[in-house]
Amino acid sequence: MGDQTKTWTAALVVIGDEILSGRTQDKNVAQVATWLNDQGIRLAEVRIVPDDLARIGEAVNLLRAAHDYLFTTGGIGPTHDDITVDAIAAAFGVPVIVHPDARAILEAYYRGRPGGLNAARLRMARTPEGAELIPNPYSGAPGVRMDNVYILAGVPNIAANMLEALTGKLEGGRPVVSVTVGARAAESEVADLLRETEAAHPGVAIGSYPFFRDGGHGSNFVIRSEDGELARATCDDLALRLREAGYEPVDGGI
Amino acid sequence: MGDQTKTWTAALVVIGDEILSGRTQDKNVAQVATWLNDQGIRLAEVRIVPDDLARIGEAVNLLRAAHDYLFTTGGIGPTHDDITVDAIAAAFGVPVIVHPDARAILEAYYRGRPGGLNAARLRMARTPEGAELIPNPYSGAPGVRMDNVYILAGVPNIAANMLEALTGKLEGGRPVVSVTVGARAAESEVADLLRETEAAHPGVAIGSYPFFRDGGHGSNFVIRSEDGELARATCDDLALRLREAGYEPVDGGI
Repeated sequence: MGDQTKTWTAALVVIGDEILSGRTQDKNVAQVATWLNDQGIRLAEVRIVPDDLARIGEAVNLLRAAHDYLFTTGGIGPTHDDITVDAIAAAFGVPVIVHPDARAILEAYYRGRPGGLNAARLRMARTPEGAELIPNPYSGAPGVRMDNVYILAGVPNIAANMLEALTGKLEGGRPVVSVTVGARAAESEVADLLRETEAAHPGVAIGSYPFFRDGGHGSNFVIRSEDGELARATCDDLALRLREAGYEPVDGGI
Repeated sequence: MGDQTKTWTAALVVIGDEILSGRTQDKNVAQVATWLNDQGIRLAEVRIVPDDLARIGEAVNLLRAAHDYLFTTGGIGPTHDDITVDAIAAAFGVPVIVHPDARAILEAYYRGRPGGLNAARLRMARTPEGAELIPNPYSGAPGVRMDNVYILAGVPNIAANMLEALTGKLEGGRPVVSVTVGARAAESEVADLLRETEAAHPGVAIGSYPFFRDGGHGSNFVIRSEDGELARATCDDLALRLREAGYEPVDGGI
């Protein structure tokens, strides 16, 4: 799993007018975040930018330098508004090429399908010069890796397949362990208790997530740490403090 | 509706470790985007940042200068990880105060409720000095406006109530009109047709959103423009071109 003392970080650029217009609900932030955590890499920052060459390029160049990894989702389909590859090639200062392996994949995928490998579909074989492919068993057209930038599809289940293909292949550190305990307490009733518990256990972060359900207030408390034993010990301590304060702790959350 | 020639823009900063860890699926981007569009304001950029004073402050100072409006969601509850007000006060270089009106609202809201207005709940009356309140009829604790920065709750239905309270109060331009037409066409079969239609109608943007459903491929095409008549005329033209190419256009999308 690589260097255990370093914190590995990634950023994500979500590309698409449809997200910024509210038409489409993004689902890639959560799935990329969850997958990265399993790889021992922390998602440190997300930007959502429009289908605009300059805005994509600016975000990509800034974030690929600031983090170990940069992921992008969206804008790699066959239509005129799919400009992610062009933007990233320009950001790297390299030309766009038709990648021979991608072309072969698409030729095989579209052989016998209506329309065949037309010009629009061939757009999906374009990569920045020097890039590698990320397999897409779901729908042929591959993702693209360029240096530390991983270019994924915007359609969530295609992006999920590309992540699956990358599982275990990126160097990372220790995954962050999350442990949850819930209680039928409004978070404002236990705020001091939470702060004190966090302060008593250096190396953990405790998040508080309130809800209103079945006619009553409650909260889930998420203890996160790179040290799994520490997270669990803190959770036990928090459960004890909740019980002493008159709230029944619910292991795993409510 | 203000200046009709200017494009009014906003940015959104989503604040919260729970979004970046993948624990919580964000819903505020889509609802803020949709609401802004109705106000004639375009959401131009989103950043998702962790619960970190410096990272919040950096994003806020950059984006409040770059756009007419900046919205934030998250981090204004009663617990130790709710630091948005502190971060934004620091970004503006002003102290945090207990806002007298916010205190009065919370005193009234918690009168007779278990625990009353304890120290944790009183945290929710804190604002940067010089701020105004955004009413929250849903759960008492108000949002905060500081100059062109609108600080909203992270819980989506509370944020929705704060947006409701702001409806019609922000200066904007013409809302962007969206018109949709669908067809049982893979987008890669009609990519040329889309590009040509967009080129024939300056002032519109056409987005293409493919799907696979009921055993077949299809796409929805969204025509967006600040000129509603132009958007509808372009939609009619696109429907005609789809029909000529052998695809039955479906008004309003599939």
